[in-house]
Amino acid sequence: MTKGRATVLIEPNRLETWQVPVADPQPGGVLVQIVLGGVCGSDAHIASGGVGRMPFPIILGHEGIGRIEKLGAGVTTDYASVPVKVGDLISWSPIALCHRCYSCTVLDETPCENSQFFEHADRPNWASYSDFATLPPGMAFYRLPSHANPEAVAALGCALPTVLRGFDQCGPVGRGDTVVIQGAGPVGLAATVVAAISGAHEIIVIDRVQRRLDAARSLGATATISMTGTTSEDRVAQVWDRVGPQGPSVVVEAAGALPAFPEGVNLTGHHGRYIVLGLWGEIGTQPISPRDLTIKNMQIAGATFPKPKHYYGAVHLATRLQDRYPLAQLITHRFSVEDAPKALQALGSDTVIKAVIDPTL
Amino acid sequence: MTKGRATVLIEPNRLETWQVPVADPQPGGVLVQIVLGGVCGSDAHIASGGVGRMPFPIILGHEGIGRIEKLGAGVTTDYASVPVKVGDLISWSPIALCHRCYSCTVLDETPCENSQFFEHADRPNWASYSDFATLPPGMAFYRLPSHANPEAVAALGCALPTVLRGFDQCGPVGRGDTVVIQGAGPVGLAATVVAAISGAHEIIVIDRVQRRLDAARSLGATATISMTGTTSEDRVAQVWDRVGPQGPSVVVEAAGALPAFPEGVNLTGHHGRYIVLGLWGEIGTQPISPRDLTIKNMQIAGATFPKPKHYYGAVHLATRLQDRYPLAQLITHRFSVEDAPKALQALGSDTVIKAVIDPTL
Amino acid sequence: MTKGRATVLIEPNRLETWQVPVADPQPGGVLVQIVLGGVCGSDAHIASGGVGRMPFPIILGHEGIGRIEKLGAGVTTDYASVPVKVGDLISWSPIALCHRCYSCTVLDETPCENSQFFEHADRPNWASYSDFATLPPGMAFYRLPSHANPEAVAALGCALPTVLRGFDQCGPVGRGDTVVIQGAGPVGLAATVVAAISGAHEIIVIDRVQRRLDAARSLGATATISMTGTTSEDRVAQVWDRVGPQGPSVVVEAAGALPAFPEGVNLTGHHGRYIVLGLWGEIGTQPISPRDLTIKNMQIAGATFPKPKHYYGAVHLATRLQDRYPLAQLITHRFSVEDAPKALQALGSDTVIKAVIDPTL
Amino acid sequence: MTKGRATVLIEPNRLETWQVPVADPQPGGVLVQIVLGGVCGSDAHIASGGVGRMPFPIILGHEGIGRIEKLGAGVTTDYASVPVKVGDLISWSPIALCHRCYSCTVLDETPCENSQFFEHADRPNWASYSDFATLPPGMAFYRLPSHANPEAVAALGCALPTVLRGFDQCGPVGRGDTVVIQGAGPVGLAATVVAAISGAHEIIVIDRVQRRLDAARSLGATATISMTGTTSEDRVAQVWDRVGPQGPSVVVEAAGALPAFPEGVNLTGHHGRYIVLGLWGEIGTQPISPRDLTIKNMQIAGATFPKPKHYYGAVHLATRLQDRYPLAQLITHRFSVEDAPKALQALGSDTVIKAVIDPTL
Repeated sequence: MTKGRATVLIEPNRLETWQVPVADPQPGGVLVQIVLGGVCGSDAHIASGGVGRMPFPIILGHEGIGRIEKLGAGVTTDYASVPVKVGDLISWSPIALCHRCYSCTVLDETPCENSQFFEHADRPNWASYSDFATLPPGMAFYRLPSHANPEAVAALGCALPTVLRGFDQCGPVGRGDTVVIQGAGPVGLAATVVAAISGAHEIIVIDRVQRRLDAARSLGATATISMTGTTSEDRVAQVWDRVGPQGPSVVVEAAGALPAFPEGVNLTGHHGRYIVLGLWGEIGTQPISPRDLTIKNMQIAGATFPKPKHYYGAVHLATRLQDRYPLAQLITHRFSVEDAPKALQALGSDTVIKAVIDPTL
Repeated sequence: MTKGRATVLIEPNRLETWQVPVADPQPGGVLVQIVLGGVCGSDAHIASGGVGRMPFPIILGHEGIGRIEKLGAGVTTDYASVPVKVGDLISWSPIALCHRCYSCTVLDETPCENSQFFEHADRPNWASYSDFATLPPGMAFYRLPSHANPEAVAALGCALPTVLRGFDQCGPVGRGDTVVIQGAGPVGLAATVVAAISGAHEIIVIDRVQRRLDAARSLGATATISMTGTTSEDRVAQVWDRVGPQGPSVVVEAAGALPAFPEGVNLTGHHGRYIVLGLWGEIGTQPISPRDLTIKNMQIAGATFPKPKHYYGAVHLATRLQDRYPLAQLITHRFSVEDAPKALQALGSDTVIKAVIDPTL
Repeated sequence: MTKGRATVLIEPNRLETWQVPVADPQPGGVLVQIVLGGVCGSDAHIASGGVGRMPFPIILGHEGIGRIEKLGAGVTTDYASVPVKVGDLISWSPIALCHRCYSCTVLDETPCENSQFFEHADRPNWASYSDFATLPPGMAFYRLPSHANPEAVAALGCALPTVLRGFDQCGPVGRGDTVVIQGAGPVGLAATVVAAISGAHEIIVIDRVQRRLDAARSLGATATISMTGTTSEDRVAQVWDRVGPQGPSVVVEAAGALPAFPEGVNLTGHHGRYIVLGLWGEIGTQPISPRDLTIKNMQIAGATFPKPKHYYGAVHLATRLQDRYPLAQLITHRFSVEDAPKALQALGSDTVIKAVIDPTL
Repeated sequence: MTKGRATVLIEPNRLETWQVPVADPQPGGVLVQIVLGGVCGSDAHIASGGVGRMPFPIILGHEGIGRIEKLGAGVTTDYASVPVKVGDLISWSPIALCHRCYSCTVLDETPCENSQFFEHADRPNWASYSDFATLPPGMAFYRLPSHANPEAVAALGCALPTVLRGFDQCGPVGRGDTVVIQGAGPVGLAATVVAAISGAHEIIVIDRVQRRLDAARSLGATATISMTGTTSEDRVAQVWDRVGPQGPSVVVEAAGALPAFPEGVNLTGHHGRYIVLGLWGEIGTQPISPRDLTIKNMQIAGATFPKPKHYYGAVHLATRLQDRYPLAQLITHRFSVEDAPKALQALGSDTVIKAVIDPTL
C-alpha cells in the first residue's frame, strides 16, 4: 500500500507532516492526486483552536484540485453528469451530504445534520494539504472543463462558492446595484468579480492592504478605500458621498473582523441589503441600532456553507473568467506539504493574496 | 365657515382642544367627518416629544375612518377606482406621495422624499383627532365596502398596513411557517391574524399583559408566553422546545422595546427571518453576535412606512375577517376629542388593547 | 420467503394479480406492509398505455401509506430526522433521487436524470397496489405523526405534493388572491384546500360533476361553476363578473383535459398566473394568442414532479387539516388488490372522488 | 405664439406635416425642443391602423430626447430628484400615470386605467415627431447625465425600458444563464446588451438580417443564427446542441412575428423561462402543447408597458454603456420631421437598425 504526505493537526497549534496510507476509493467514491490545495483563512483559525471541537488528529485542507487516480466502483460521471476518467482534473465540495435528514430533504439547506467537515487522520481522508485525497461516496465533485486553468479555479478557493451562495441566499447583485465590499481577501475578491460580471454599477472595496485593493481593481472594483488613515466614519462618508443620497444597495461583509459589522450596517443604504459572509468564526457581539433597520428599510443576512451547486458554479465561472480577469495571478505564494505551517503563518502577512499547497514542491 | 374640534399638540407634552376651521376640499381632495380616530402608540411618542422635529402646532391622529362630507372637484372614485359619493365611509393613508421623486418613481418605495406626515394646525388638515379632516389631492383614500364594520377596520388601525408592508418587504408568512410574535399590541395582533389566515402552522405570541395574550388567542395564536415571571432565556427555550430543533421560521418584532431585539435574534430559527416592525421610534443600540447570522443562515429585516396598497389591503382584509375574528371587540376604550390626553395616557395601561377617538362623544 | 399479492400490468390493458416475493430491505431501505394504496388518475393512463415506454411487467401504484415491517441496516430515522421503528406508519416519495446528476446537484430540480418511476415486477418493488412494498435506499419516506389519520393523508395522495410543488414553482397563493381551479379531482381539491388555508380571497372551482363541486365547497371553495350547461365563454364571463375588472390572480389547471388550456388562459386576469398541473399526460396542441400574454402581463407555468419536501409537506399538512376539513371522507371507494381493474374503471365514473386499494379487503 | 412642425396621423395611412402651436407648460409640466425622436416599430403599426382606436388626428412619436425650453411652475427637479434647468437634456416615459386608480395604487402596475398614450394633435402634445413637445404634469421625465451621448440613449429607444421591465416581470437574467433572443431589432438588441452585462453565459441571437446579427455580436451576443436557409427545427436543434441537454434557461421573444411563438416554446429549456416582449401587436393564435410546459417545468410570461423606473434605468444604463458598446452607431438612419413617412417605410428594409427623426434636418 502506497503512502502519501499529509499535514496533520494533532491538537490546536500542533502541526506535523505524516505519511498516511493512500486509501482505495469506496464504490461511488474517487481517489485523486492533489494538484493544488488551497490555504484558506479558516485553516489558520482551525489550527489555532478557534473553531471548537474537532475529531483530532485531522488533516488540514478543504479546498482542492485533484487529478483522478482511481474511480470507485460504479463511477462514470462527476456530480453534474459529465463523464470522467482517470487523469481528469476535479474540484469538490468538502462536505458529503446525507440526503436523509430534515435539512437535506425538507429544507434543501446546508448544513446537513449528518455531515462531517473533517475526518480522523488515520482514516481515508478528503483533506487537501496532502499528496492524495480519497473522496467518499456522496461527496460531490466536478470535472474541470478541458480548457480550465487549475490555478484560476484554485485562486478563489472556497471563497467563490461562498459568495455564490451568499448571493443566492440574500438576493443577487445585478444591473444598477451599488456594491460595497468590506475586505479584499479571497471572499471580498470573489464578491468583487461576481459583482463586476453581474452588471453592478459601482463596486467599492475597502481593505487595509494596498496590494489587495490593487487586486480588487484588477477584478472590477470601480473604487477602493484604504483603511489606513481613515476612520469608520470617514469611510461611511466617502461611500455615501460617492453613491448618492440613498446609499449603497448591497454591502458584503468579507472582512472577518468584528468591527466590520457596525460599519457595514452604517454603510448600507436605504432599501439595501447587508450580506454577512466572513464573520462565521468571530466570537463576540457588536452594537446595532434596530431603529436604523426600520428607518432604512434595510435587511441583514448571513449565509452559511455553500451547496454543491455553488462549487459547480465556481468551477465554471472561474474557468469562464480566467482569460478576462487575472485570476491565476491571485496565487501569490506556494508551499510544500511540509511547509504548511509557513503557509498558515503567511496568511497574516500583507503580501499574501492567496497561498496554496503544491505537493510537487 | 364651520369649525370643528381638534386635538392640537402645541409643543411636546402640551395638548389643547382647538376649534379649527373646516376647510373645503381642493380639486382632487375630499372632506370627511371623522367617525373614528385611532389612537396609536406613536401618538404618545409624538406627544411626549420622542420623535423629533415637528411643524408645531400640529393636530394629532394618523388613523381614521371618515364619512365623506364633500368631494373636491373632479373626484368621482376612491384611489382603487371605486365610485364614491357623499355619505360613504373611507379610510386613508396619512401620507400624500409626490410621485415625482427618486423614491416614488425609481425605487417605488416609501418614504417619499417630499411627503409630509403632519400639517400645521392652522392649515387644512388630515389629522384624525378631530371632528373633520380634509384630505389633500394625492392622499390615497379607500371606500369601505358597504358591509364593512368601521370598528373592525379601525381596531387594527395603521398596525395592519404596517404588518402587510412588513410581510411584503421581508417575505410573506405562509403554510407551514412557525411564527413568533413579540408583543400583542395592535401590530402584534395584526401580525397574529395575518399569520393565522396565511396558513402558519404555529403562532406563538409573547407579551406581558394577559388581556392582550387572550386577544392574540382570539385572533389565531396557537400559544402564548407571558413575560411575567419568565426571563428572556426562558422564553427562547420555551419557543424552541415547542417548534423543534430548527427553531421558528419567522419572528416578528412588534414590541417597540429595545430589549426585544436581541431576544428576537435568539428566537429566530435556522434559515429564519426576523422582521422588525416596532422599533422605528426607539433610540439606542443593542448587542448582536454577527456570527449567529451566518451560523443560522438567518436574516433580519426592518420595514418602513406602508404604501397606499397596504392601506387598501387592510381595509379589505379587516372587512373580510370581521365576522370570523372578534376584530371590533379589540376596541376597548373610546374617548371624546377633548379627552385625547386621557386616551394617550390610557395607552400605558394594561387594560387597553385599542383606544379610539369618537367625535360623537 | 413470504409472498404477497400485487397488481401487475403485463402490458397496456392487461392486468393480473400476482403473488410476488416479499423482499428484505437493503441497507438504508425499509419494508412496509401496505395500509392504503392510492388510485391515481395517472394509473389509468399508464394501464391503458398512454404514457409511453415502461419496464413491463410492472406493479401499479405510486401513492401509499405503509406500516414499517422491517428496517434496513442503518435506518433509525425517516428522511426528516424523525426516529422510526417497526410498526410506524410512513408515506413516501415514489422516486429515489440519485443525488449525483446535474439535475440533482446543480439544478436542485426534478426529474432526476437517473431516477426510475417503476421497477420490474420480479424485483423488489415499491409499488403500492400490493400487500407489501420494499423501499430502496434513497427513497425518501416520512413518518406520519402519531395522531395522523392515514385516510386523511391518503385521500389527496400525490395530488397534494403536486399542488405544493406547483405553488413552489410558480409562486404561492396568498392573502387576497382570487383563485380559479379547473377541475375538482384530487389535484383540484388539493389546490382548493391549500388556497383556502393560505388566505385566498376567492376560490372558484369548475367541474362537470356536482359531487366533486360539493367536495370543493367542503374544502373551502367560495363558489363553484358546473360545466354542465355552460360554455367556456359563459364560465369565463361568470368568473370575471364575480372577481372584478382585473380578473383572477391565479388560475390552476387541474383538469387534465386539453380544452381546459385555452379556457385557463382566458380565465387568467391581468398580472395573473396560470399554473398548469394536470396536462402532463395529454398529447396535443391548443391555440393560444401570444398577444394576450403581453396585454394581460400574465404568465403561464407548468410544474413537474414533486420533490421529497413536498411529500413531507403533504403528510404534515393533511394531518394538520384532518379535523378542520373532511379529508378522509374524500375516499369514496375502496378495492382489494385483486379488484384493482375495477378501481381503475371507477375513476371514469361520476361517483368517485378518491379510490384506494385496501389490502385488508 | 410660436409654432413648430409635427407629423400628424390624420387617420390610418394618412400622414401630414402640420404647423402646431407650441404650448406653454402647465404647472408641473415642461416644454422641450426635440433633439431626437425615435422611430419605433409600433409607429408603423399605428400608422397603418393595426393597433385599434386612436383619438385622431394624433402626432406620432413616443420616444424622445428633448432639450428643456421652459419649466412649468414649481418644477425644479426631474422625477428622480435631480435638479433641472433650461437647456438640460431629458428623456421621458410617454404615459402620465394617474396615481389614483386600482392599477396605480393597489397593484403598482401598468397600464394605468386613466392614462393616455396619445393626445389629439390640436392639443398640447408630448409626441416626438415634432419640433417641440409639452410634457404634462405627471409625465415622468429624467435628466440625461452631463456626459451622456443623446444618440446612445436614443438608439435603443423604448426597447431598453421594455427589456428592463420584461426582466423585472419575469425574473432577471444573471450569471450562468444561457439566453436565446428571437429577433435583433431594437428590443432584441437591448435584450442582448442587458444579458451581456448581467453575466449571461451564452447569448444566442436569431434574426433574418445579417446586419442586425452583426450588431448583436457587437453588443455581446456569443453566437448568432440566421433564419435565412434554416428551418425552425434546425434552429432549435442548433441551440440545444450548443447549450447542452437542459436547453436554454431564458428565451426572449423580440421578433414581433407570430411564428416566433411556438419556436420560442421549443427553444426554451428545462426549468426555463420564455419572455414574450414583441408580440403585443400581433393578432392571431399559435398552437402550443401544454404538456411541454409541465414536462419541461417551464414558464411563459408576457410583459406589458414599462414603468417610469424602467425609463430612468434605460437612460442611465445607456449612458453607462455608451463607451463600452457601440450604442450610438445603432442609429443607421435619420429623417426630418417632414420625412417621417420615409422613416416609417425604412423600418421594413434590411438596412435599418434604428431610425430617428432629427428636427435639425
